[in-house]
Amino acid sequence: MSHTAVDVIRAKRDGLRLTDGQVDWVVDAYTRGEVADEQMSALAMAIFLNGMDAAETARWTRAMIASGDVLDLRVDRPTVDKHSTGGVGDKITLPLAPLVAACGAAVPQLSGRGLGHTGGTLDKLESIPGWRAQLSLDEITAQLGSVGAVVCAATTGLAPADRKLYALRDVTGTVEAIPLIASSIMSKKIAEGADALVLDVKVGSGAFMKTEERARALARALVDIGVDHGRKVTALLTDMSVPLGAAVGNAIEVAESVDVLRGGGPEDVVELTVALAREMLALAGIDVDPARVLASGEAYETWARMIRAQGGDPEAELPVAKHTRVLEAAEDGVLTGLDAYAVGVAAWRLGAGRARKEDPVQAGAGVRCLVKPGAAVSAGQPIAELYTDTPEAFDAAFETLRGGVELNGEVTERSALVIDTIRG
Amino acid sequence: MSHTAVDVIRAKRDGLRLTDGQVDWVVDAYTRGEVADEQMSALAMAIFLNGMDAAETARWTRAMIASGDVLDLRVDRPTVDKHSTGGVGDKITLPLAPLVAACGAAVPQLSGRGLGHTGGTLDKLESIPGWRAQLSLDEITAQLGSVGAVVCAATTGLAPADRKLYALRDVTGTVEAIPLIASSIMSKKIAEGADALVLDVKVGSGAFMKTEERARALARALVDIGVDHGRKVTALLTDMSVPLGAAVGNAIEVAESVDVLRGGGPEDVVELTVALAREMLALAGIDVDPARVLASGEAYETWARMIRAQGGDPEAELPVAKHTRVLEAAEDGVLTGLDAYAVGVAAWRLGAGRARKEDPVQAGAGVRCLVKPGAAVSAGQPIAELYTDTPEAFDAAFETLRGGVELNGEVTERSALVIDTIRG
Repeated sequence: MSHTAVDVIRAKRDGLRLTDGQVDWVVDAYTRGEVADEQMSALAMAIFLNGMDAAETARWTRAMIASGDVLDLRVDRPTVDKHSTGGVGDKITLPLAPLVAACGAAVPQLSGRGLGHTGGTLDKLESIPGWRAQLSLDEITAQLGSVGAVVCAATTGLAPADRKLYALRDVTGTVEAIPLIASSIMSKKIAEGADALVLDVKVGSGAFMKTEERARALARALVDIGVDHGRKVTALLTDMSVPLGAAVGNAIEVAESVDVLRGGGPEDVVELTVALAREMLALAGIDVDPARVLASGEAYETWARMIRAQGGDPEAELPVAKHTRVLEAAEDGVLTGLDAYAVGVAAWRLGAGRARKEDPVQAGAGVRCLVKPGAAVSAGQPIAELYTDTPEAFDAAFETLRGGVELNGEVTERSALVIDTIRG
Repeated sequence: MSHTAVDVIRAKRDGLRLTDGQVDWVVDAYTRGEVADEQMSALAMAIFLNGMDAAETARWTRAMIASGDVLDLRVDRPTVDKHSTGGVGDKITLPLAPLVAACGAAVPQLSGRGLGHTGGTLDKLESIPGWRAQLSLDEITAQLGSVGAVVCAATTGLAPADRKLYALRDVTGTVEAIPLIASSIMSKKIAEGADALVLDVKVGSGAFMKTEERARALARALVDIGVDHGRKVTALLTDMSVPLGAAVGNAIEVAESVDVLRGGGPEDVVELTVALAREMLALAGIDVDPARVLASGEAYETWARMIRAQGGDPEAELPVAKHTRVLEAAEDGVLTGLDAYAVGVAAWRLGAGRARKEDPVQAGAGVRCLVKPGAAVSAGQPIAELYTDTPEAFDAAFETLRGGVELNGEVTERSALVIDTIRG
């Protein structure tokens, strides 16, 4: 049967399910340029407003995977990957990948750069002198065999339909549709070839999903797609109403990750790293206690090998921002709020993140949160330190950060860090 | 306040009213090319699915009018225009414009060409040897003064935003949204500068609106926009379940119109012509009986002057198709159905219409319906004549037409030709 773009758009517009044939055709034709941008954006809006069910979303994901290569990792160990939907201070990949590798799995962690208020894993690692993000497929496979963990840039041949569609959604107000978000994430992750995948779906002001209901729906959609593709997959719903850990930036997040790998670091970062590691190891069928391996120093050894394998020096001094300023408590009392989104935007304004894809980031810029919500503070006590190479950014960052700090407000019970686990 | 395309798209996507500022900005920025096609198509789909209220639609229309010129007709007589949403055999403009002019109004009838199963007024008139559709604004004004009626092509400077948006909607499955249809029609009609406007909103298989409910909603939207712009405006809801008159084509519709202007012609064409004329004259404040003027021959005289003023010869022989075939009744009985859409598609296949904008049309091609539903027929009696210069088209046209002819089916009461009148 032959299809036309208008027929497919009309079907979804009128609330019908798209057939497998329609989905396959429209994704392929869009990738080839036969379906025009203005047609795909109309379809994306119709999907946004009328939805796609689990079977349609799974098929859409298949079609996006089929638009490009699927990696064949050829390693002896079980492969397991992690994906986070993005949060403020979310450096978990850095301690997690070497930890899970040290426990016996192979962790191919193809990552992206940051845009807006959430940082990118590659931006963080690039603050390590010499470290490089671009690896060939042969290098990835070799490093998975020798080190067990690799964190690098995704190769361009994976799910090109997704890259094209994502850029279109970004300018057409169609980013936030759950079926499109889920198929975008899973098409890349499945094309990366790991046997198992743990998803960290973040909820709260600093996350893409602001409500638990939407985060839960996304987690369910992600897990369903994974199951449809025969992957072992689990999603954790985790809190992102306050930043993860103390450090929000690039080099300062690397340093905090190293603290965790050396047995220290903030409690919440350790908790989430171990919780995600447990799920990854369970899916990989490896019966090892990650808390023990973390305490043993083996995870740090794997980290050091992983950084060296990609040209970095794990012992090198990390870059430090040229200017520091301190945000002090205005009065005595209790810190009742430290909004993740405000901290993320402040760090971004200081130079840790980028507004446009082609912007550079500052390695040393960011915010260090010195007090967690619930703690007592006295007037003049430092709440946060702000770092930047561009001191003219301080004013805007201070203003943003002050809007996210609440002293002596209503005391609310902080939700558990891991809110729920959704299994495939 | 500064706007972005994504903000405007998101507002409509999330079910909000667009502000006047958002509407003005997005229509202007789209016309200038600052808002891209893929952004406007996403917005059009959001409008399709979430609607626009009467005030938004009126503002959208204003913005489209403001994208181009507004004609200043400068004639002494009251100006009044008619617009039909399009039907099969709808040649009413041809007798109507000279009739209303003969009654004392000025009728500037800027028209279009046909696409698909409904014919275009200009295509019909171009079957008259020598007649030309393209007039300058000075020629239009002069002819309105001297003859009182002009039927010609719309000048390109009117509502360029609409022309651009219409082409986009056509390829993005966003044609059928009532606020977009209504603003498209009214932006052109208001820019054409007439003081008053009568709308013929057609309902039924041969019309764009298949149900009375949708036709009524469109009529209401059209009238509301007219009132918002201070125009006198009335809409008639009229039946389009069977073709209007007997002739469906180009030259044969001109001939039928001339019959009406000479006091003959099919009853339904006469009825609708007079009904529309009465509404136009009422809006223009002219107390003249159009039935009397039609019977007097003055309307025909005005027609002849109008055709001559545009280079045509009203007495010339009209082109005749090279080939004729007859569809006969298969058995004795009663003709219970003659579907307007089937007749329209058959005429289009015979060459009376075009599939693409750039296609030519045949002057002589078409279908003449010899029997109206409700009439008794005997086996072998001719029901319709089919005309074309391209006899290879007969098979497909016959097949389509047979699908629309029903003999001895259920006898249903035919609805009144004028179903309702909606006043501003």
